[in-house]
Amino acid sequence: MRSDIATAAARIAEHIRHTPLLRCRGGELGTGFAVTLKLELLQHAGSFKPRGAFNRLLSTGLPTAGVIAASGGNHGAAVGYVARVLGAAAEIFVPTSTPLAKVARIAGYGARVVQSGATYAEALAASRDRQFETGALEVHAYDHRDVLAGQGTVGRELEHEAPDLTHILVATGGGGLIGGIAGWYAGSAKVISVEPEGCPALHNALKAGRPVEAPVGGLAADSLGARQVGNLMFPIAQAHVAAAVLVPDAAIAAAQRLIWDRTRLIAEPGGATALAALLCGAFTPPSGARVGVVVCGANADPAAMAAP
Amino acid sequence: MRSDIATAAARIAEHIRHTPLLRCRGGELGTGFAVTLKLELLQHAGSFKPRGAFNRLLSTGLPTAGVIAASGGNHGAAVGYVARVLGAAAEIFVPTSTPLAKVARIAGYGARVVQSGATYAEALAASRDRQFETGALEVHAYDHRDVLAGQGTVGRELEHEAPDLTHILVATGGGGLIGGIAGWYAGSAKVISVEPEGCPALHNALKAGRPVEAPVGGLAADSLGARQVGNLMFPIAQAHVAAAVLVPDAAIAAAQRLIWDRTRLIAEPGGATALAALLCGAFTPPSGARVGVVVCGANADPAAMAAP
Repeated sequence: MRSDIATAAARIAEHIRHTPLLRCRGGELGTGFAVTLKLELLQHAGSFKPRGAFNRLLSTGLPTAGVIAASGGNHGAAVGYVARVLGAAAEIFVPTSTPLAKVARIAGYGARVVQSGATYAEALAASRDRQFETGALEVHAYDHRDVLAGQGTVGRELEHEAPDLTHILVATGGGGLIGGIAGWYAGSAKVISVEPEGCPALHNALKAGRPVEAPVGGLAADSLGARQVGNLMFPIAQAHVAAAVLVPDAAIAAAQRLIWDRTRLIAEPGGATALAALLCGAFTPPSGARVGVVVCGANADPAAMAAP
Repeated sequence: MRSDIATAAARIAEHIRHTPLLRCRGGELGTGFAVTLKLELLQHAGSFKPRGAFNRLLSTGLPTAGVIAASGGNHGAAVGYVARVLGAAAEIFVPTSTPLAKVARIAGYGARVVQSGATYAEALAASRDRQFETGALEVHAYDHRDVLAGQGTVGRELEHEAPDLTHILVATGGGGLIGGIAGWYAGSAKVISVEPEGCPALHNALKAGRPVEAPVGGLAADSLGARQVGNLMFPIAQAHVAAAVLVPDAAIAAAQRLIWDRTRLIAEPGGATALAALLCGAFTPPSGARVGVVVCGANADPAAMAAP
């Protein structure tokens, strides 16, 4: 998988941002130990998702019938952004739970947005009916080899810039990001999955020994609310995800506010979920660990961070 | 001055954040050319100001009578933060124009906040009366050698990480930041001052040949609204500031929104002012220039960035 990711990195290099790190000392983020933040929320379209979408489209070639995707919001924004950059038409299916700010952003990139169904899984089904009619190229939000490899470039950058990290916390939805990152590290650092209690798709899959349907709910459902993790990422997670922990919504909200207070970054709930595990004690790194946290999305309504 | 700045950098290194760069390609920020952003808005307390305040206090030593400062907001937050870290009491005088979010932030660091006067200059006068009573150490917002050297560490980091830059745009209020940065580069890159039309203190001083009183008004007055630039920075600016341009408030607001839209960073008006000069054409770099922009403050109300 490392070679797929290295190939992806070269393929997408001119289109994506090599996002910076912010190194926070012990105490700065409410933990006793230092934490290195990978600021992937500063990526184009406000999340890591363009990495996979660029890799998918640049690998496959531009389809004349355009591209189609289903998304809770971030993947749709990414596909809209990537399609505009590469010059393809895009249709994006989102559930009715997708925040208006994300719908506006997708449309702002020139994509046609269709709101359909209450959950990502329902929007995905509707997008597949439509794809059957139009012949557009489906860009899956996570369960495709090129998408996984594209997201894995986050891990490659992180290892290059912070080779000393021993533990890396990543929020999990459908598992594209953590699958790519765990595939890159392949055990050389411990990759920890963090999910909201309301969206425990990987946690439940690892317990069941296979991807299973899981509840979708709570504060971060619009970005982490996959009904089931990807089939491609699952064996990677079994082999290379060291732990899969759950955090309550209150910890996610507290992490969002702490990130704003201490660093002036706006993380969406899914973007703050990985840090939340350190704050609420869902994951406690061993003494001497050098901890990295991927802050993976910023598509929140910033008004939520306004001073009370 | 470079040796003062290097000394300051070593002195404050363990306390401040070495803030990252975000490299944006041509087109990403509404300019045809690439722009390297120095993300100094991710500094502790949300602006560059702790650099100077740490250097001042670590150089002088901790006063038993505490510290006192006047500020439009950011310097006060920084002095409050620094005093808390170093274990000193702090009193901060702010004008009534200081946004509530900044007042709350200063108080949040444990400082005593006194609102006095309509402008920074009036708050400064009140703080000096009080200082005469208490004997506290005054930490001037810009016109002190240690403060200038501390702010100059921004230039030192920027040159180290992006040695190819030929033009560096910096917002000017009292001139501590640009004085320090221009003192560091000393002509090896062109340092461009950007001020709001409503706060033209350096622009007017360079025209007059000496620091003169200037109007204070408009969108960025709370961070850039010094009545007059510092006496220490002025000869540095005469020698090493290549141009001093003015931008209208509309360009500052547009730059704030563009920064949020394209990078998901929240810049306050003063933090977006330098980029505004590129967007509105107040400064056009020559062909082949490699342009850096210091994004120097984030203490805005994020609700202002909420989707319309």
